[in-house]
Amino acid sequence: MKQIAIQGEHGCFHDIAAHAYFSGEQVQITCCATFEEVFEQVENDPTVIALLAIENTIAGSLLHNYDLLRKSGTTVVGEQRLHIRHCICCLPDDDWTTVVEVHSHPVALMQCRSFLDSHSGIKAVEAADTAGAAAYITQNQCHGRAAICSAEAARLYGMKILEDSIEDNKHNFTRFLVACRPQRADFLRPLSEADKASIVFSLPHEEGSLSKVLTILSFYGINLTKIQSLPVIGHEWEYLFYIDLTFDSLTRYRQAIDAITPLVKSIRILGEYKEH
Amino acid sequence: MKQIAIQGEHGCFHDIAAHAYFSGEQVQITCCATFEEVFEQVENDPTVIALLAIENTIAGSLLHNYDLLRKSGTTVVGEQRLHIRHCICCLPDDDWTTVVEVHSHPVALMQCRSFLDSHSGIKAVEAADTAGAAAYITQNQCHGRAAICSAEAARLYGMKILEDSIEDNKHNFTRFLVACRPQRADFLRPLSEADKASIVFSLPHEEGSLSKVLTILSFYGINLTKIQSLPVIGHEWEYLFYIDLTFDSLTRYRQAIDAITPLVKSIRILGEYKEH
Repeated sequence: MKQIAIQGEHGCFHDIAAHAYFSGEQVQITCCATFEEVFEQVENDPTVIALLAIENTIAGSLLHNYDLLRKSGTTVVGEQRLHIRHCICCLPDDDWTTVVEVHSHPVALMQCRSFLDSHSGIKAVEAADTAGAAAYITQNQCHGRAAICSAEAARLYGMKILEDSIEDNKHNFTRFLVACRPQRADFLRPLSEADKASIVFSLPHEEGSLSKVLTILSFYGINLTKIQSLPVIGHEWEYLFYIDLTFDSLTRYRQAIDAITPLVKSIRILGEYKEH
Repeated sequence: MKQIAIQGEHGCFHDIAAHAYFSGEQVQITCCATFEEVFEQVENDPTVIALLAIENTIAGSLLHNYDLLRKSGTTVVGEQRLHIRHCICCLPDDDWTTVVEVHSHPVALMQCRSFLDSHSGIKAVEAADTAGAAAYITQNQCHGRAAICSAEAARLYGMKILEDSIEDNKHNFTRFLVACRPQRADFLRPLSEADKASIVFSLPHEEGSLSKVLTILSFYGINLTKIQSLPVIGHEWEYLFYIDLTFDSLTRYRQAIDAITPLVKSIRILGEYKEH
């Protein structure tokens, strides 16, 4: 039995991603109100595994989660990609003529902007979670209130789907990372199968400092699949770089990390895992 | 008189940024409901200037605005940084005991998450705009309803500030870009004073393709201040790179662009301007 901590309620996209990642295994989901709480769960219990969204094709990187991940003592052991589809749902005896409000997570509301604009009679209200909005409506029998969530959540809470796939952009994918205490990493993925790594390092604002690092990585045959720079808050001329790498040989990758380490200000391996 | 198209209502952060950028000049602000509409304004009237948020220290890059900018025929001619401070405000005869709802833009609501969590009696409701929420409350005399917006917007609409600086993270800065039709660029900034450029290019997923480009830029003495990779939707192994560069010599920068052009799949100069 795997214990997974996620942000959100049962039926939310984190829940769906957790079941997809651990498909065929028995999982027990701990629902947390915040991502901070997700990492607290791992801190309090060494067997708990965190699963958290890290980037979305529409909304971009979740910088706050990158920050939490970097500061936590956890190691990334896997990734999961998920196609995000939103539906609008309500109580079985409600319909388009009776719904006056729609509740959901602000990001979900933003991703259904065109749909909401074309239904201006329905007021959009922010909720902490997509599935949580559906759960609340069912539990409190809130007539006249709809939720935007996954079709899975709608079914889980016995809601009626008024319309499915209401997101503006159909290329809506979220990438999730799976993280745990470093001592548990080998238990969750054989390191020998790792062909991807997420790393973060800082560089002084010197001409060509990034190009040197990337050139060394390319000399070692390491591929970049993502790069994102972030100014270090409070250090105006310093930058953090989050980089995802893919490689054929773990040894070669390790040698490449050794080779770039003297050229960066600080470096942290967020994790080594198998590409989804 | 400068005609500036922004997303949001009078008093919103785009409005404040526009007045900061064109400080001392007469400006006329056209408020648009969406960023798409901002670019339509420029398309319909060659004298209109667009000003739009492009990244925030907390929320990250506004990928949708990068996309609109890239697809529009406009040129970036300037940038503006703004410290984002949110206040909560209500009608003058309301107070903490009578306020039951707070309306604002979903990003502003997210940036005040801790504050909202500690005021769980007040329901957060999504609005299209921060200042727009304040305007609506005043115009419709919505008693019991607060808005989260800038202190400037609160004052503009005659609202009472219940508490200022309610954002969770005080290092909340937004960077805005100023863009216009290419023919108007020289009128808005002398190109000779440009020391920064925003460019976007795509690269095939080949080992070291990015490191080659960055190495050439560093050989030409060009600095990177931002890099962000994005997968090209529908082309799984192709990436777009948004890069901000700073340089001492415009000629050297132009030579560097010529030098990298044969190595990239496509390249577009979003604009050359003076660093803020």
